Amino acid sequence: MLGSTHGTFTTDLRARVVACGEEPTGMVHGFTAAPGDQDVSGRPLHAPVPDLDRFFRPGSVAVVGASDTEGRPNTGITRQLLAWAERVGARLVPVHPTRTSVFGIDCVPSVGALPEPVDLAVLLVADPLPVIEELADTKVRFAVAFASGFAETGEAGAAAQERLAAAVRRSGLRLLGPNTNLNAFERFREDLEGPAVALITQSGHQGRPVFTLQELGVRLSHWAPTGNEADLETSDFISYFAGLPEVGAIACYVEGLKDGRSFLLAADRAARQGVPVVAVKVGRTETGARTAASHTGKLTGADQVVDAAMRQYGVIRVDGLDQLQDTATLLARARRPQADGVVVYSISGGTGAHFADLATAAGLGLPTLPQAKQDELHQWIPEYLSVSNPVDNGGHPVGDWRGRKIIDAILADPSVGVLICPITGPFPPMSDKLAQDLVDAAEATDKLVCVVWGSPVGTEEAYRTTLLGSSRVATFRTFGNCIGAVKAYLDHHRFTVGYRSPLDEAPRTPSPSFRKAQALMRPGRRLSEHAAKQLLRAYGIRVPREQLVTSAAAAVRAAGLVGYPVVMKASGAQLAHKTELGLVKVGLTSASQVRDAYRELTDIARYESIDLDGVLVCQMVGRGVEMVVGVTRDELFGPTVTVGLGGVLVEVLNDTAVRVPPFGEHEARSMLADLRGKALLDGVRGAPPADVDALVEVVLRVQRMALELDGDLAELDINPLMVLPRGQGAVALDALAVCR
Amino acid sequence: MLGSTHGTFTTDLRARVVACGEEPTGMVHGFTAAPGDQDVSGRPLHAPVPDLDRFFRPGSVAVVGASDTEGRPNTGITRQLLAWAERVGARLVPVHPTRTSVFGIDCVPSVGALPEPVDLAVLLVADPLPVIEELADTKVRFAVAFASGFAETGEAGAAAQERLAAAVRRSGLRLLGPNTNLNAFERFREDLEGPAVALITQSGHQGRPVFTLQELGVRLSHWAPTGNEADLETSDFISYFAGLPEVGAIACYVEGLKDGRSFLLAADRAARQGVPVVAVKVGRTETGARTAASHTGKLTGADQVVDAAMRQYGVIRVDGLDQLQDTATLLARARRPQADGVVVYSISGGTGAHFADLATAAGLGLPTLPQAKQDELHQWIPEYLSVSNPVDNGGHPVGDWRGRKIIDAILADPSVGVLICPITGPFPPMSDKLAQDLVDAAEATDKLVCVVWGSPVGTEEAYRTTLLGSSRVATFRTFGNCIGAVKAYLDHHRFTVGYRSPLDEAPRTPSPSFRKAQALMRPGRRLSEHAAKQLLRAYGIRVPREQLVTSAAAAVRAAGLVGYPVVMKASGAQLAHKTELGLVKVGLTSASQVRDAYRELTDIARYESIDLDGVLVCQMVGRGVEMVVGVTRDELFGPTVTVGLGGVLVEVLNDTAVRVPPFGEHEARSMLADLRGKALLDGVRGAPPADVDALVEVVLRVQRMALELDGDLAELDINPLMVLPRGQGAVALDALAVCR
Repeated sequence: MLGSTHGTFTTDLRARVVACGEEPTGMVHGFTAAPGDQDVSGRPLHAPVPDLDRFFRPGSVAVVGASDTEGRPNTGITRQLLAWAERVGARLVPVHPTRTSVFGIDCVPSVGALPEPVDLAVLLVADPLPVIEELADTKVRFAVAFASGFAETGEAGAAAQERLAAAVRRSGLRLLGPNTNLNAFERFREDLEGPAVALITQSGHQGRPVFTLQELGVRLSHWAPTGNEADLETSDFISYFAGLPEVGAIACYVEGLKDGRSFLLAADRAARQGVPVVAVKVGRTETGARTAASHTGKLTGADQVVDAAMRQYGVIRVDGLDQLQDTATLLARARRPQADGVVVYSISGGTGAHFADLATAAGLGLPTLPQAKQDELHQWIPEYLSVSNPVDNGGHPVGDWRGRKIIDAILADPSVGVLICPITGPFPPMSDKLAQDLVDAAEATDKLVCVVWGSPVGTEEAYRTTLLGSSRVATFRTFGNCIGAVKAYLDHHRFTVGYRSPLDEAPRTPSPSFRKAQALMRPGRRLSEHAAKQLLRAYGIRVPREQLVTSAAAAVRAAGLVGYPVVMKASGAQLAHKTELGLVKVGLTSASQVRDAYRELTDIARYESIDLDGVLVCQMVGRGVEMVVGVTRDELFGPTVTVGLGGVLVEVLNDTAVRVPPFGEHEARSMLADLRGKALLDGVRGAPPADVDALVEVVLRVQRMALELDGDLAELDINPLMVLPRGQGAVALDALAVCR
Repeated sequence: MLGSTHGTFTTDLRARVVACGEEPTGMVHGFTAAPGDQDVSGRPLHAPVPDLDRFFRPGSVAVVGASDTEGRPNTGITRQLLAWAERVGARLVPVHPTRTSVFGIDCVPSVGALPEPVDLAVLLVADPLPVIEELADTKVRFAVAFASGFAETGEAGAAAQERLAAAVRRSGLRLLGPNTNLNAFERFREDLEGPAVALITQSGHQGRPVFTLQELGVRLSHWAPTGNEADLETSDFISYFAGLPEVGAIACYVEGLKDGRSFLLAADRAARQGVPVVAVKVGRTETGARTAASHTGKLTGADQVVDAAMRQYGVIRVDGLDQLQDTATLLARARRPQADGVVVYSISGGTGAHFADLATAAGLGLPTLPQAKQDELHQWIPEYLSVSNPVDNGGHPVGDWRGRKIIDAILADPSVGVLICPITGPFPPMSDKLAQDLVDAAEATDKLVCVVWGSPVGTEEAYRTTLLGSSRVATFRTFGNCIGAVKAYLDHHRFTVGYRSPLDEAPRTPSPSFRKAQALMRPGRRLSEHAAKQLLRAYGIRVPREQLVTSAAAAVRAAGLVGYPVVMKASGAQLAHKTELGLVKVGLTSASQVRDAYRELTDIARYESIDLDGVLVCQMVGRGVEMVVGVTRDELFGPTVTVGLGGVLVEVLNDTAVRVPPFGEHEARSMLADLRGKALLDGVRGAPPADVDALVEVVLRVQRMALELDGDLAELDINPLMVLPRGQGAVALDALAVCR
């Protein structure tokens, strides 16, 4: 759908223009992928960036179903579109089969009769399909369909939407909707300064609070209400906004995604450009996912996978619309941090203590100010007050000339990247001056100055006029939102500075392992343990020396070859819970024990009516840390790789981490850091540290399998993977593989 | 200090008067403890409730250090006190050694010269100590000391504060402060209706936002700024406020507590009265604890213990001042829930999905509305919209007569206790009418109606006038705060309905075990494993059959008595890490193995220069779930009982739960529910369920030990406690005890 037939899309990477004297906030790496490039799983490594300039700023707009009859809903819409067209300088052409004019403007009877190509057609008709088909012959670039009753209503609606999408694909135009609204055509304030927030929402009501931020002085550049996304989707708008010089951050409200990969490609583009994306994504719970699906008919994906995908590409996920507003605003406006240190400055020791407590708990670093800096601050702040950080000024110094000096002195310290001043109780004689000093200091520095205005009222002059009057001060209403946004800000800049796109290093051609592995696949079936292990071996993952035997005599010969002591296990494609059934014998040290074990295993299998393909005679492997590594398929993102702590930890706590391929070694290591029981790998109770490098290598090889065998492999589970002490490697003791 | 010499304190339990037509919010149990009652550890089971009526509504007030000289800080304070005295109808007497009058009111030269007893003396002097000493001879009931420079400044200040506290104890009066302020004497709005919030803070600045809620229509009855708490402390105010008919909830900002037990007694009183206490408690982190200590010089306690103590007595802990405001306001005003079910009602499917997602993730129950109710709602709401819960009305029905009908129909459903309507985007044609309908419906029902006003502006008429104008609608600004407050509301009522004070069942006299146990204690020393196990046996906790022997021959005899197979362990008071040193031998099945083991253990001990008191020959115990149960001392609360999952879970994840004695069986069981790895007790991987009853019994017996041996026992650690399959009990395999 985004193919090369669309002459309107540019694949150029436009260098991010530096806005408002800012330096670019992240390193920009060149795209190495070109149109048509795919990774080895066949997924695209490149998405064209739609050029939506003429959507947001069209020269001419056709309104199909325009009306000026009082009381009709289309009349209100037409009126709004007229006002908008006037603001953006577009010519509006009403389209109506029977009217000669609407609001005094001459009508044309159908889109086929449009006198000249228009940029945008707004479809106010109940069934947009015939109009889209008619538009195919015109040169209209964009259409918007407001009609509802598509995928959000169930199966029949989904089929209707598919027909509409197919018509759009044939037509060569790009469609916003159906089930969308007027949000893109609202009145944006033009008088606000600083980098803007661009907004993308799948619900108009849910986007309103971000839009309303303009009343508090936050600049908004665009609003894309994506509706059912029959064609244009959230990802398209992310890609487009990420290239606009005026956009400082992108705020999204997402209920479901249309396609996982196109989301990753869009997020990757934003990460390369250093443009932060902040997103609310519904679907934390079953209830949320189900309700969201019934709203726009889209997939929500497994939440843990969505979470991982967002983190891999630096998308900042928040839960509340208030956090979306506060975090996007801060990230849009703040310049690149010069240091990680956060200083809390307050007129009350209690406020400082409380804020520092919550900030530290959230992982912000509050460095102790150097003694020389503390001495400097004590010129203006009484000796008995603590100024190590938090800095408590006791109140009075803010009332006079000392107030500004203290702020400047704190900001001048090289360890300080962020100054946060929580003003919980407004007390005009102090807080008015303090607010002004903070604004003045913020205007004079590149460092981040945050204020929490804690009064629940929020109509105070110092808040409304002084603080909100400056785009250089980040103002919050709660400690929690301030801390969350500052954390996101520091994390995001750390992320973009170090960002190397995993897409650039994605494998594009199958490895030599692929052919060997393919020969082992049995479509639609589950492989035996032995076959699954051969699959692992094909990808260079160590398995115990083992032989599959079908007689006691062969078992003894095998044990001699494998080397005593040995483990023996029944082997069969449908076998699960081997240990519980007594179908595993460990620590066998002699031929007679092997012979007895063979007899016992086959007896049990016979008794339990289990079909065996033989008995495995395996090398005994030393002790280490038991892990699990596996591949599962996500409805949105395809194959995903999971690593977890084995044994009781995975059983009871589900202590696992997941990532969406492609990802590199750094990300594989970060999976281990995500595990709650990660200390086990360092060695506890006198155990030696585990061979983490070998574990990471297994994870990367499993990823390679997941990508190369994407069409063939439904599920893979190495459980346990025994990670031996450092330098000794990791061995897959058991494996399960299910073919597609 | 709170003893019987204080004639001003009442020990009567005043029945909570039903305010504003509310039913009492919880069952009130009679106190069974009387003044002087103590539990077996010597801690009080009863605290007198200070009668602070005359503190907050004095008939007469002496102001020591009163001034009317312009520019002096005391002048401003005197002016404020004058205004306050006038409002509450108190006579103000300025006290000054040299002035004849202040603000036209005749001065007395000293407190000794006061013409008649006054209720309250406000001390505006730098050193309140001499005045307190002078006040001892008058009949002044209360004093307030504003001076700072006490415990918050370090050791010398702490000593000065102790001298002040001693003088207060001798004087018979009650003191607020030092290091406090004018907050108690501010102007409270008298025109607001509904149950009020009473506020207690250890920082004036931090209390201001709650106080300011009055501007948004929330009634506030009191503000107690407790400062350094040389005498009156947070607990005293909680006890007092819990008995006032106008108080619907108590909001606290706490940096540190003076005494753990008095806090528990106060929280218990509030729980018995059904008055919710909502608290911010600083000290989540080291940084917070340290900073808070330097602010008011109080102890913060181990945060996990503070958390547990609060939960045991139903205190609702929140992190932010915004949550404190929202939760306290809701709990003050809402009536007892008639059902647990929460219905989300919105004019947008997206809003409903998003809210439902977050609410479900937080643990709120969103019941599916019965089909008949859904059919009823579909009279007014189009068929294609989902009304199962969330109820999405699509917007239009709120604009006319259907709006109110829908709300009433939802509220009429018996499964519904709470209706929440998130209005994220204000759209006056709809939201103004919706807000009014919600207010009208709320005024006509006992059920809880919540609205989230999501606009970041907050000056909209529907919000300021309509919603905030009613004390029957709980209005929030964020989804998160609404969800948190509603969760706290439902949890709190579940708690109070089932509340039985653990203090009523606290042991008051030592058990027969106590004398046996005391004989085993070795002051200041650590007990050997054998002695520690004898201590456990004294309290009826099962240990393996075992004998301490000092020769190989005795070991063989012991093994015969204990029964093969046996375990042998070196035993010595200073022995730790026995397993790592090879000082444990398991599974010994013959006399010769026992003899060899004895030799080997003593050889190792000699080689490692470890003093042994002998070798333990112990019964082998079957397999089960390894747990740890222990006692540690908290600086605030004294002995606490911990239970955790043993082995790698406690090592790596510190998966433990703690409680403050006294607590009952229900609470002991709830400790197990707190464990992340609790599923292990149910049996995983084919293991049988563990004997949880036996585990709970051990926890309760350990609690008994902790209380009875409070003076003697510094620390106890049973690790592991082997919890056998159900019906087979639990056995302490190893134990460590340290005497005080």
